[in-house]
Amino acid sequence: MLPFPDSRWLVPFDDSFRHDRAPTEPPPGSPDEQALEEELERLTERLEKLQRRFRADGRRALLVIVQALDAAGKDGTIRAVLRGLDPAGCQVTSFGVPSKEELDHDFLWRCVHHLPPRGVIGVFNRSWYEEVLAVRVHPQFLGPQRIEVPEDPEELWAWRLQAIREQELHLSRSGTLVLKLWLKVGKEEQRKRLLARLEDPDRNWKFNARDVEERKHWDDYHEAFEQALRATSRPWAPWYCVPADDKDYMRVQVARLLVDALELLDPRYPDLDDAERAERSALRKALRA
Amino acid sequence: MLPFPDSRWLVPFDDSFRHDRAPTEPPPGSPDEQALEEELERLTERLEKLQRRFRADGRRALLVIVQALDAAGKDGTIRAVLRGLDPAGCQVTSFGVPSKEELDHDFLWRCVHHLPPRGVIGVFNRSWYEEVLAVRVHPQFLGPQRIEVPEDPEELWAWRLQAIREQELHLSRSGTLVLKLWLKVGKEEQRKRLLARLEDPDRNWKFNARDVEERKHWDDYHEAFEQALRATSRPWAPWYCVPADDKDYMRVQVARLLVDALELLDPRYPDLDDAERAERSALRKALRA
Repeated sequence: MLPFPDSRWLVPFDDSFRHDRAPTEPPPGSPDEQALEEELERLTERLEKLQRRFRADGRRALLVIVQALDAAGKDGTIRAVLRGLDPAGCQVTSFGVPSKEELDHDFLWRCVHHLPPRGVIGVFNRSWYEEVLAVRVHPQFLGPQRIEVPEDPEELWAWRLQAIREQELHLSRSGTLVLKLWLKVGKEEQRKRLLARLEDPDRNWKFNARDVEERKHWDDYHEAFEQALRATSRPWAPWYCVPADDKDYMRVQVARLLVDALELLDPRYPDLDDAERAERSALRKALRA
Repeated sequence: MLPFPDSRWLVPFDDSFRHDRAPTEPPPGSPDEQALEEELERLTERLEKLQRRFRADGRRALLVIVQALDAAGKDGTIRAVLRGLDPAGCQVTSFGVPSKEELDHDFLWRCVHHLPPRGVIGVFNRSWYEEVLAVRVHPQFLGPQRIEVPEDPEELWAWRLQAIREQELHLSRSGTLVLKLWLKVGKEEQRKRLLARLEDPDRNWKFNARDVEERKHWDDYHEAFEQALRATSRPWAPWYCVPADDKDYMRVQVARLLVDALELLDPRYPDLDDAERAERSALRKALRA
């Protein structure tokens, strides 16, 4: 079993998670904005150093799955935490509306395609979890998938959660550390951010009328998130439910989780064996001569 | 649950399969060569008709996994049974030595990549089962995979069999019928065929010195096959152990399994709804005018 970071935001593995008890605001007494910015700076520098060793080591992969409601700050957090990294060892994949080719396969298929290889940090901006979140809230999305829905439709979500759990177990056993983040925004904070997108010309492009529509399904989404997290937060692929109302605070939490994860994996520059050492020593002499 | 063909070659789901009781020769009283050839002709014609409807229906996929020891007749059987089909709806993927990119991912990854979409018949010539067959017989193949082998290495094969079982269950629930064929050749028949490759100049290219080497591991392979079939023959992805010593007989068995499978899936040309019917009727008039 690969090690995973401990954190106050870890979703317990015992089915006890309750979404209405998970905060959206930083705990009282959290550092102020400036302290958070300095902390993020330190963490991203550390992350960059760790990534170099992680890449050279090349035995493990890291998959970070990011899920959230609209305007929770997924894109900004990914950008702020990862922009110092070597892009050659870091790949971000955003999953939007599935294509015809993707709909012609099982629901895991398109994500599997983009799994990070060994030595690489892969980030999924949305993921197979959409299939038990957005699709569960809007079952009409199942139509284009042309699958047979079992007599009891609840069984379909149980099947999907099982498929995800087993897929993640398989990945973990194959050397990929899977970390999953729910960036949990409050309803009032989301309202403010959507309004800001409408009012600020530079953010207008990010506004989508559907995001306002989706607020009507607030409770359904939280119910679906709770069930997904309870069914799939496991030692081999833990969920972290990170409060998202304060962006600076959220970014530090996410950066710390990634730093802790890589430190626990303890990547090392590959060791040379005696033959390789001898060969390199000979080559060194040749180059000097 | 998708229906699957019943057959005397079906590997039972109750863990009772014994490789030493599975025949390599046709049962006594089987039809003669000419009768078999005529039967194959009938079956492949039927298959071609079924495939057209299967493609138009487009709700299900069919995955046929073919595994065998060397010279059992995998390539020839695939060619003989499938050559009448529309290649646009049929894809054969052969899995050889994994590439660097494939080794950098989990062992299922490269096969998932080639899964058939809805409406298509996909054939895997070798598959993820190599990972619990050839790799199990030659554990040194694990080296380039750079995975952590558990303290008890037996656990690794159990993990892999679980991953395969769950992957196939997920595929079945997603609308892919998975059929798996072990073309079981006898040791003496294999010897004759390898010798023929050496003696016939036109078959020389197919001869590989390693195939003779591999005969030393005959019992290990059969042990690995038995364990794999017992662990993964399930109603959602049954194995069929087909005797391979008589090629004509084997081809008829395989063709019949595919025909039975497609007939059970009962593919239909898509129905039009009333609006589509009305639209087509109007267009028909316009084209006539």
